[in-house]
This record gives sequence, C-alpha cells and structure tokens, in this order.
Amino acid sequence: MPQQRRAQATRRAIVVAAAEEFEDAGYDGTPLSAILRRSGATKGAFYFHFSSKEALAVTLVRLQGRHWPRLRQRWLRRRLDPLSIAVGMADEASRLLENDVVIRAGTRLARHRIGRNLAAHRAAAEWEQVLTELLQRSAEHGLLRAGVNPVEVARVIHAAMVGVRVVGADVSPGPGVGARAAEVWQVILQGIATAEWLRSNRFLRTVHLP
Amino acid sequence: MPQQRRAQATRRAIVVAAAEEFEDAGYDGTPLSAILRRSGATKGAFYFHFSSKEALAVTLVRLQGRHWPRLRQRWLRRRLDPLSIAVGMADEASRLLENDVVIRAGTRLARHRIGRNLAAHRAAAEWEQVLTELLQRSAEHGLLRAGVNPVEVARVIHAAMVGVRVVGADVSPGPGVGARAAEVWQVILQGIATAEWLRSNRFLRTVHLP
Repeated sequence: MPQQRRAQATRRAIVVAAAEEFEDAGYDGTPLSAILRRSGATKGAFYFHFSSKEALAVTLVRLQGRHWPRLRQRWLRRRLDPLSIAVGMADEASRLLENDVVIRAGTRLARHRIGRNLAAHRAAAEWEQVLTELLQRSAEHGLLRAGVNPVEVARVIHAAMVGVRVVGADVSPGPGVGARAAEVWQVILQGIATAEWLRSNRFLRTVHLP
Repeated sequence: MPQQRRAQATRRAIVVAAAEEFEDAGYDGTPLSAILRRSGATKGAFYFHFSSKEALAVTLVRLQGRHWPRLRQRWLRRRLDPLSIAVGMADEASRLLENDVVIRAGTRLARHRIGRNLAAHRAAAEWEQVLTELLQRSAEHGLLRAGVNPVEVARVIHAAMVGVRVVGADVSPGPGVGARAAEVWQVILQGIATAEWLRSNRFLRTVHLP
C-alpha cells in the first residue's frame, strides 16, 4: 500500500523535524510553522497525524519511553558476564542519545515538559534498578573487588551516565556523550573490577558493539 | 534603618517564596499570586523590588551564579592538597544544592529558562576547568596512581556531580544529593588515588567540613 507507506514517511518526517526544531529553539520557541517548513508536510498532513504540537511532543516522549526497556532486555539476554552487560547496556544508551535526535528530544521533553516529569522519574528509577541488579550479580560472580559496595557503585554509574548527557551538551568543544560515557567506565572500572576481569578486557570489546 | 531592613526582609521572603513555588509547580506553572501568597508580600511590595516574574527569575539566576566562584575561591585558598580541595569543593557544592532552595531554583532556571542556557554552559565549563586543574596538580603531586589520566577523571567527576543533582531529585526514596555526591568520591577515589593518599583518609575529614 504505497499510500500508507507515504503517510508513514510523512509522519516520520514530522517527528524528526519536530525533534530537530525543539532541540534548536526549545518546545516553547518552536511554532508549528517551523515544523511544517522543516518537514515539508502540509498543515492538513500534520493534523491527519497529530491533533496538536502537544500531541506530537507526547509521541516523542512515548517513542523514547518504549526504547529503553527493549534495549535493556536485548542486553540482558546476551551470554555475557553481568559486568560486561552493564557496560554494554549503558554504553549503547549513551551513544543512542548522542546520535538519535528523536530519542534525545523525547528524553528532554519527558524531563521538562510532558507528563509532569513522571516519565523521567520512572525511567531513572528503572535504570538504577537494572544497574543495581547487574552490579549485585557481578559481586556474586566475584567480578568486583573485595569491599566494593555494588549498590553504591550502581548509583554512581547511573549518576555519571545522566551527567554525561547534560555536560556533553553543555561543555563544547570537548568529548561528546558517547566518548564521555566510555571514560566513565574506564575510570570507575579501574576502582571496582577485579584485576582478572580488567585483564580480560572484556569491557573494551563490549563497548562499541553495534 | 529599620525601614530599609524591612524592605530587605521582604525582598528575601519574595525570593525564597518564588524559589519554593518554582520548585513545586515550575516557572510557567507559578502565577505571581502564588508567590505573593507564600511570601506574604503585597503586590506593591513585589513591584517595588522586581519589575516582573521574569526579573525575579533573573535575580535567582544571578544569585546562584555569584555563589559558585566564591565557593571555589574559598576552597582554592585552603592549605590542603589539591585532591582534598577537589573533594571538599564538589562536596560543599552538592550539599548546598541539596539544602538551599534559592541556589537550587536559580541553577534550574539558568539551565531551562533564563538567558538561553548560556549561564548553565558557562558554569559547567568553569567547574570542569577547575576540577581539571586540581586533578592535574594532584597528578603532579603524586597523589594519583600511575596511568590515571587526570583530565579524563575530572570530566567523569564533573559528570557524576551533575548527575547526582538530577538523579537525587528523580529517584526517591533514596539517598539525597549530598549523600550521592559522597558516594561518587568513595567509588572514584578507590580507583584513582594512591594507596598512601587513601590511607591518610584525608577525604573523609574534608567531606562534611562546614
């Protein structure tokens, strides 16, 4: 059905154009006309897909919200040790935020605009929970040094991953979000992983996996 | 001059009430009437001090903006090794953000509302710069383990400190911003500081200093 495919392409163009405009000028600073201009869609096409700019923003929030549980599930199913899964999972999330404007805009809207911040709070709690479980399993598997508190480490990694998103956009020129996320692992793993785990260098092979 | 003192008390009450309201309902969601109600100020008193809600927000941004360079200068003058200064400086900043609603609201406004984010970008660049210099001096003084890259570590610490602010507010119940910031140091110092520096436990004495 070429007509349906064309409609989907238009919808996608509107979503991407909105994400780019919101990023440049902010949600409040973006008139509908700018989204239409950038996407090449007509007003009629816009209202065929979305009832308002707000509805489009809710869609962006929903798109990113669906993404994270899938990404985590994919990593949790991999046959890797739990520390490598934690590294790979967080690394992929950071690279996605750096490279995908739709995910990035949706994440920002979830925090600052839509749904009174509830989506952002839930997402943060879920990331912290998954990282905590993986670090606890890492401790049980003997991958962490004696005396390392896996719950504390999970909280620190989570905070650092959230921070690289904010700082990576703030402080430029400088490393981007993905490169800063890799630095987080390099610095933190030195202090928490066993010499054996570090020697095997599994994290270097895990980071940057597609 | 009791009249002048009363005017200053009213001004301060308006600033604090605005910070609290912005935190509860957001800048857009806070009508002037809510600030007046919470502060107990009259409309006339408000307009004696501020030309608009926007002008009040600019004041909040300016108040927090003045605070950070002073805090850093105070720590840089202390007779401590550079690593202890970095720890103490970042720790005090985190505790201040946790405990002072005016600083906290001003920091949020700087990022999301006022001045197109420029104040937030400048503040982030300054923090990263100061932390980088302190970590480089720590390396020169032999306080960091061999192979540790002080520039990388400074970026990671900076990101983690920004992240604990966001996450500490998002994920609750859980440790607050100050406690999470202390965890950042505990986890990262284990991986970067020399055994001798860690044994001396200077950072434990530095953290929580008034």
